[in-house]
Amino acid sequence: MHALVERLFPVCRSITGDGVRRTLEIVGERLPLTVHEVPTGTQVLDWTVPREWNIRDAWIKNPAGDRVVDFRRSNLHVVGYSAPVSATMTLAELRPHLHTLPGQPDLVPYRTSYYAETWGFCLAQRVLDGLGEGPYEVVIDSTLADGALTYAEHVVPGRSDKEVLISCHVCHPSLANDNLAGIAVATALAARLERPRLTYRFLFAPGTIGAITWLARNRDRTGRIKAGLTLACAGDRGALTYKRSRRGDAGIDRVMAHVLRGRPHTIVDFSPYGYDERQFCSPGFDLPVGSLTRTPYAGYPEYHTSADDPGFVTPEAMADTLETLWQAVQVLERDGRYENLSPYGEPQLGRRGLYGSLGGRSDTKQAQLAMLWVLNQSDGGHSLLDVAERSGLPFQAVAEAADALEGAGLLKRVGESG
Amino acid sequence: MHALVERLFPVCRSITGDGVRRTLEIVGERLPLTVHEVPTGTQVLDWTVPREWNIRDAWIKNPAGDRVVDFRRSNLHVVGYSAPVSATMTLAELRPHLHTLPGQPDLVPYRTSYYAETWGFCLAQRVLDGLGEGPYEVVIDSTLADGALTYAEHVVPGRSDKEVLISCHVCHPSLANDNLAGIAVATALAARLERPRLTYRFLFAPGTIGAITWLARNRDRTGRIKAGLTLACAGDRGALTYKRSRRGDAGIDRVMAHVLRGRPHTIVDFSPYGYDERQFCSPGFDLPVGSLTRTPYAGYPEYHTSADDPGFVTPEAMADTLETLWQAVQVLERDGRYENLSPYGEPQLGRRGLYGSLGGRSDTKQAQLAMLWVLNQSDGGHSLLDVAERSGLPFQAVAEAADALEGAGLLKRVGESG
Amino acid sequence: MHALVERLFPVCRSITGDGVRRTLEIVGERLPLTVHEVPTGTQVLDWTVPREWNIRDAWIKNPAGDRVVDFRRSNLHVVGYSAPVSATMTLAELRPHLHTLPGQPDLVPYRTSYYAETWGFCLAQRVLDGLGEGPYEVVIDSTLADGALTYAEHVVPGRSDKEVLISCHVCHPSLANDNLAGIAVATALAARLERPRLTYRFLFAPGTIGAITWLARNRDRTGRIKAGLTLACAGDRGALTYKRSRRGDAGIDRVMAHVLRGRPHTIVDFSPYGYDERQFCSPGFDLPVGSLTRTPYAGYPEYHTSADDPGFVTPEAMADTLETLWQAVQVLERDGRYENLSPYGEPQLGRRGLYGSLGGRSDTKQAQLAMLWVLNQSDGGHSLLDVAERSGLPFQAVAEAADALEGAGLLKRVGESG
Repeated sequence: MHALVERLFPVCRSITGDGVRRTLEIVGERLPLTVHEVPTGTQVLDWTVPREWNIRDAWIKNPAGDRVVDFRRSNLHVVGYSAPVSATMTLAELRPHLHTLPGQPDLVPYRTSYYAETWGFCLAQRVLDGLGEGPYEVVIDSTLADGALTYAEHVVPGRSDKEVLISCHVCHPSLANDNLAGIAVATALAARLERPRLTYRFLFAPGTIGAITWLARNRDRTGRIKAGLTLACAGDRGALTYKRSRRGDAGIDRVMAHVLRGRPHTIVDFSPYGYDERQFCSPGFDLPVGSLTRTPYAGYPEYHTSADDPGFVTPEAMADTLETLWQAVQVLERDGRYENLSPYGEPQLGRRGLYGSLGGRSDTKQAQLAMLWVLNQSDGGHSLLDVAERSGLPFQAVAEAADALEGAGLLKRVGESG
Repeated sequence: MHALVERLFPVCRSITGDGVRRTLEIVGERLPLTVHEVPTGTQVLDWTVPREWNIRDAWIKNPAGDRVVDFRRSNLHVVGYSAPVSATMTLAELRPHLHTLPGQPDLVPYRTSYYAETWGFCLAQRVLDGLGEGPYEVVIDSTLADGALTYAEHVVPGRSDKEVLISCHVCHPSLANDNLAGIAVATALAARLERPRLTYRFLFAPGTIGAITWLARNRDRTGRIKAGLTLACAGDRGALTYKRSRRGDAGIDRVMAHVLRGRPHTIVDFSPYGYDERQFCSPGFDLPVGSLTRTPYAGYPEYHTSADDPGFVTPEAMADTLETLWQAVQVLERDGRYENLSPYGEPQLGRRGLYGSLGGRSDTKQAQLAMLWVLNQSDGGHSLLDVAERSGLPFQAVAEAADALEGAGLLKRVGESG
Repeated sequence: MHALVERLFPVCRSITGDGVRRTLEIVGERLPLTVHEVPTGTQVLDWTVPREWNIRDAWIKNPAGDRVVDFRRSNLHVVGYSAPVSATMTLAELRPHLHTLPGQPDLVPYRTSYYAETWGFCLAQRVLDGLGEGPYEVVIDSTLADGALTYAEHVVPGRSDKEVLISCHVCHPSLANDNLAGIAVATALAARLERPRLTYRFLFAPGTIGAITWLARNRDRTGRIKAGLTLACAGDRGALTYKRSRRGDAGIDRVMAHVLRGRPHTIVDFSPYGYDERQFCSPGFDLPVGSLTRTPYAGYPEYHTSADDPGFVTPEAMADTLETLWQAVQVLERDGRYENLSPYGEPQLGRRGLYGSLGGRSDTKQAQLAMLWVLNQSDGGHSLLDVAERSGLPFQAVAEAADALEGAGLLKRVGESG
């Protein structure tokens, strides 16, 4: 996963343009993707697909001809979606177009201006402090022109057409944790799924406008979504954070709380700020989509700065995020509601070989407890996850007990969870 | 407000009689009142309007002819509703009619006997301890005769006929916090209301029998009451206390919890003891009426004693009570349920001038957050107060966001709060 | 009660056989019992009544002819339901049939093997450690033959056919707390009931198969059960433990929480392990049956060992269990939903002699508070227990207030609780 982060890092992404295309091409080497191109001007919900932005180069040259700010060194130096410019200006004239982080004077900030046509440069405060009055040659060799918005899907079909949506934004330029780590983890998860029960849809799309475009084009199919996650900031050293869906008690909310139980984590309530859960959880859709990150949105000093580089994300953290997702997938795959076919009194497990024969001992095995719990709760209304939560037993033990009981003809699956 | 407390303090009030009339006259100088007189003997719910009590003078004279207990010094000296008496008695004979507070030997207690015909005096334990055997001249120059029960209303009409009821009891004699401070704060609040949305009804009535009389005469109109408060003990130095309505989750309960959040306060559950919330919250009416006090009922040593004088209530405390009520009025006035008219995905706020144009910054303004919250939650089922509570934003910010969104055609009011 | 424990202690009980019959005979001396015999082979729910087990003697004799393990000293020495055996064996051959507690080397464990035909002995680890290679004479003089399963009922008929079920298991041999103490407390409770409102059914039956047999034979009558308890481990020095019914909010759950409030106790959620609540709370029946113990199932080191002897249970602990049950019976007997017949405002209690006449005092009596609470809450939807819980008043005070108000014509019983 870390190799993919490093490979994707230099690409200059934005909400449209060749950076996104190149990113999807690289992901596509690992995972078959269906790439969608949606023309500029297309109406998508309340929005319109904007013009496509591409950039070749950009610089600020001092009177000596040195590039004091140079797009080739970092694509963060140019405000995203900057209109083209070619001019000679004094520092005073240039100043309103320069963005720095005075509190973090060595770092370059990340700034964009998608929907108001302007241009600008981002640079370290310390570099700005060293600049003389100029005049400076200021060039942004970009184009803003009709084109398309690009996004991609990878679908792992299941036996059921109920879908699990994993969405990650692909619009940020050289920022590793936000969101190359998310892209890498999603890619690894997709590769790991084999003939699942549910259908898994991975969405790689630019933030906000990409999710809105996808929703506009899939409006009638959102009812299939049984659970979803936006995946971002998946690789920093912080503990995992799960942000609940707008509903607060959707299946995915319970699944994530269950699989996070065993590890350091934080669970926070939904808020309409953050990643594309904002769109998936808008009141018209109100989808069961939460958000999984490590340190959340704007919660670390490296956030949206040049310090969010590949060294900031670790293979261990990405592996931990992936493993957590994998456990969530296990629960989603395996959960369901069952009915005890012998609900009056306990069935005699002993004669079916499901119960130890020597009585009177004060210890009892987890497997036997799990069978008793599954039998007791399986009235068609409780799912295996319900049983795991009520009993305090691991989901895996509960699922295995259900298998054993189903094998013995004592249990029947009667439906999906909640 | 404190001047009104001082002016009202010497009047000898009871549940009927000229003391109540004089009190309403003084309040009426500040606020137009509709005064109601309900004749003795009128059946009101399970009760009957009692005979009217008036008193001119009362004393206990020692053998030297000195008034050792003197109504003219404090009307607390006579048990409220005492029957007339004129007799010469030894201390031993008089003793069963004397009430003191042995634990607070310098204070005169407040006692009444409305519904059992008797008479008595209240005095400081220290004064009692100094009395010789007598004989004493004992005179209560009172009348108990057919007359009327008096109460008053002041109504501030709103555009809606939904009513907010503010009720305060006017039957206690010279006790400043209980309830001249409540009367003063209610009067100030009424004077401050200008062309409100809701209709505000201020009720100045004697405790218990007054509220019961009002309920009996307005039985069919109680359905209009959207929220209400009994207001008492509004001027002591203690923190504010809100006692929930019987329902426990009425609109007023949530409004008061919200406006109290920022200041020291206590919230207690309903109990059928205290002030006239007992009547408003009887199960037949079960009105959404809570009670606002500072230190509550019987919760301070000065309670129902001569120490509850104008020095015990402070202008600052009354101003704080008034300000809290004013904030509650703001929420009641402004709250409502809204519907997001662009509920699929977020509407594009930027092109409507409602959103900052430069992206990527990790700080975001409260006004923008408030708009996102209002849009996300406005599905017709959540009120602005719901949004304020879920988001943790101030109600004011949420209300302003709703205004801005309504102005932009993105939001429509669809109904009252809960 | 302790005398009954001591009398029952030596009897060798199992899930069938003469030990159970003798036990019921002794209980029957104190309480008229209806004894049921259900033949071997009878189908009961998913189970079949097993063969009857009886034992006369059993021993292991060393080469010198000494009984090194002797059934006559303690019936725990033989694994319950052991098949007959008569053999000479070396220690090595015998070893797989010997059960000890290496961590408690002086104690004899309790073991059974009801449903797999085998045989065995239980002994102290220290005794085992002292045994030479043998050969040993090994005899279990038992019979496993067609016969019957025996259980008994004692019913105290009430005015209502709604039933309270008190069930205790009678299948354990010489173990005092588990469950002779439960039998003794149930017997004492039954003897104390006189002409109750509800019908009380006491069930003395072997664990699991006994409860299952009873359920099979009373399947259509379980709808009468309004509340129930399995009673076990009722005499150790630990605090009381109440385990909720499967429902978790059944009437009995609330009653037990209420009566336990005043004493040291623990309340735990339902789990499908423990005593016969496992059967009563199987999903097909889902009866409102909880479990009352002192230290619960497997929660004390003496559990299922020879240390659970009559010295381990105390008269004080059994009296405390009985008293708690008695209080629960009081609530079950007395609880109900009432309707305030004068629900508009407070009725005038004073003219009905139900209220102190002197007003203004800051203390008020519990009896008056209880009347105000009952009046306020009696809208047909709240029971007296609801009132006790919401008000924090003792149930007894609330019930007495209801009596007084009913006597004054202000209150009418409208139904059972919950």
